[in-house]
Amino acid sequence: MIETPYLLFLGDAPDQLAAKVAIGIKDWRPDNALGQIRLEGCGADLGLTDMTLAEAKEAGAKTLVIGVANRGGVISDAWKAVLIEALEMGYDLASGLHNLLRDEGDLIAAAQTHGGTLHDVRVPTVGYPIANGKKRSGKRCLAVGTDCSVGKMYTALSVDAEMQKRGQKSTFRATGQTGILITGHGVPLDAVIADFMAGSVEYLTPDNDDDHWDHIEGQGSLFHVSYSGVTMALIHGGQPDALILCHEPTRSHMRGLPEYDLPTLQQLRDTALPIARVANPACQVVGISVNTQHLSEDEAVAYLAKVEEEMGLPAVDPFRHGAGRLVDALDAV
Amino acid sequence: MIETPYLLFLGDAPDQLAAKVAIGIKDWRPDNALGQIRLEGCGADLGLTDMTLAEAKEAGAKTLVIGVANRGGVISDAWKAVLIEALEMGYDLASGLHNLLRDEGDLIAAAQTHGGTLHDVRVPTVGYPIANGKKRSGKRCLAVGTDCSVGKMYTALSVDAEMQKRGQKSTFRATGQTGILITGHGVPLDAVIADFMAGSVEYLTPDNDDDHWDHIEGQGSLFHVSYSGVTMALIHGGQPDALILCHEPTRSHMRGLPEYDLPTLQQLRDTALPIARVANPACQVVGISVNTQHLSEDEAVAYLAKVEEEMGLPAVDPFRHGAGRLVDALDAV
Repeated sequence: MIETPYLLFLGDAPDQLAAKVAIGIKDWRPDNALGQIRLEGCGADLGLTDMTLAEAKEAGAKTLVIGVANRGGVISDAWKAVLIEALEMGYDLASGLHNLLRDEGDLIAAAQTHGGTLHDVRVPTVGYPIANGKKRSGKRCLAVGTDCSVGKMYTALSVDAEMQKRGQKSTFRATGQTGILITGHGVPLDAVIADFMAGSVEYLTPDNDDDHWDHIEGQGSLFHVSYSGVTMALIHGGQPDALILCHEPTRSHMRGLPEYDLPTLQQLRDTALPIARVANPACQVVGISVNTQHLSEDEAVAYLAKVEEEMGLPAVDPFRHGAGRLVDALDAV
Repeated sequence: MIETPYLLFLGDAPDQLAAKVAIGIKDWRPDNALGQIRLEGCGADLGLTDMTLAEAKEAGAKTLVIGVANRGGVISDAWKAVLIEALEMGYDLASGLHNLLRDEGDLIAAAQTHGGTLHDVRVPTVGYPIANGKKRSGKRCLAVGTDCSVGKMYTALSVDAEMQKRGQKSTFRATGQTGILITGHGVPLDAVIADFMAGSVEYLTPDNDDDHWDHIEGQGSLFHVSYSGVTMALIHGGQPDALILCHEPTRSHMRGLPEYDLPTLQQLRDTALPIARVANPACQVVGISVNTQHLSEDEAVAYLAKVEEEMGLPAVDPFRHGAGRLVDALDAV
């Protein structure tokens, strides 16, 4: 559990894209994003108030979150100066970088001296149980994709946001580092040891009110041979009541696997649903979320209409047109 | 790679069952099993020559293998005395115990002083790659089960042994600690980090001669919600040309999951084959391996005949009747 609110560190991000994590936090949990702190030459701007460490601390910030990718995979001296000063002022640090805060001697020393916590959200810190498969109360929705990086996290976040807006009981459950930084907690599933994957998802989505929905962040794809085992563990550990199929229609091959074609949405449905019903016989596919960012508005509308007719299910791009129809479909489960 | 031949340490095993790992080594790799060493009160006997550490060393033993489970999960003082003496005499040690040799200070010290290696086969020692899904040369067979512990390792070992007997090119590829100790190498798949599972299986089963078969040890089951992700990674990382379906017909529920029924062999086929064809479109189900240990000979023969007719595939218990018909089926792939 990462303490909020955050001060978002953008460092010397070359451009907006490099600050993807910070943008996610600001978009999805604006209450967590008190302000931004930028180094000279920073090319990213979240439109938040620029604050010094002292100003943000005064305003109540608890954690300095590294919201930017680092060039060359090294935590530079310029970054270090800010991170150490933050620890000295009583901040915790949180990072999803590949190179860990906890591998940096000077950060460890400063954290120990000043009682701060170093959160490396790529690394599990919990001893997860082996999954027991027992039926849990409450409802769960999982987004599964024809490929990796087709909008599963976005779909889960937007469905959760729509439910919140309607006053429904709903929680986004993060399974990757961006999601964990956005919400302050979750399971870094890709770094969990094989035997405990499904158990970590059970741990993440415990018993809840009968009318509460967990929206579980998807990972990988059953059709992506590098990561399909992670997806499988999500389905069986999450025991979803509802699946949302996610797709990006302009991909020419599976991400990072040039020899592999994407499955159709029908293939995804016919593979994922029987697998999900092993853990939850009542599971249904409720809708389709299409990432239409590479289509014009007319193309997007036409494509969604075609998919909707072919699949007999609501097909939407939640970024373009909102998640309302997906929530309507979940309400009917 | 664990150096062979082995001296098999049976310790104070209360009975034969506790020495399961040692029995596996002796049954499947008799050339690796130079002799046995037992403590006072040992209730297990492999029928091998009882040897002192010095006698076995003289006869060429390289590694003292702990072939027995330890009571209470503690490496006792009586065991320690033998293990340390072995290190002093130049042995390596190998263990599949949950409590690791490398966590014992006195064993580490003795290993360092005398240049010995401590092999904890439950723990990966290789930085496995992320799977790339590229088609590899050579052929691969994977046993998949309706449940855990239905005879997948036995099936793979017996098919490999039959191919060796016929002079065919064949390798058993271990993915669990018993298999790794039997053969001296492999991947402890259940302890691999999620993102690298499929890659570790690719690493384990590299390019080979076109007429060479890898027999990959299966793990878990697609229908076992605790471990299905591991099974999925095996299928996609192994890109098998052939699947053998494994079943134990007297189970009343999935192992450790009292609320879960076993799937039928038809369900297993219909789930596993499309998944396998994502990585290898030519994959076929070639036969069925039934663990009939809880059936009489008449019951076993009748059950196998029924399965064979229903599935239209050779159905055998390789322990009872040999793996010949499974190898015949693989030869036709």
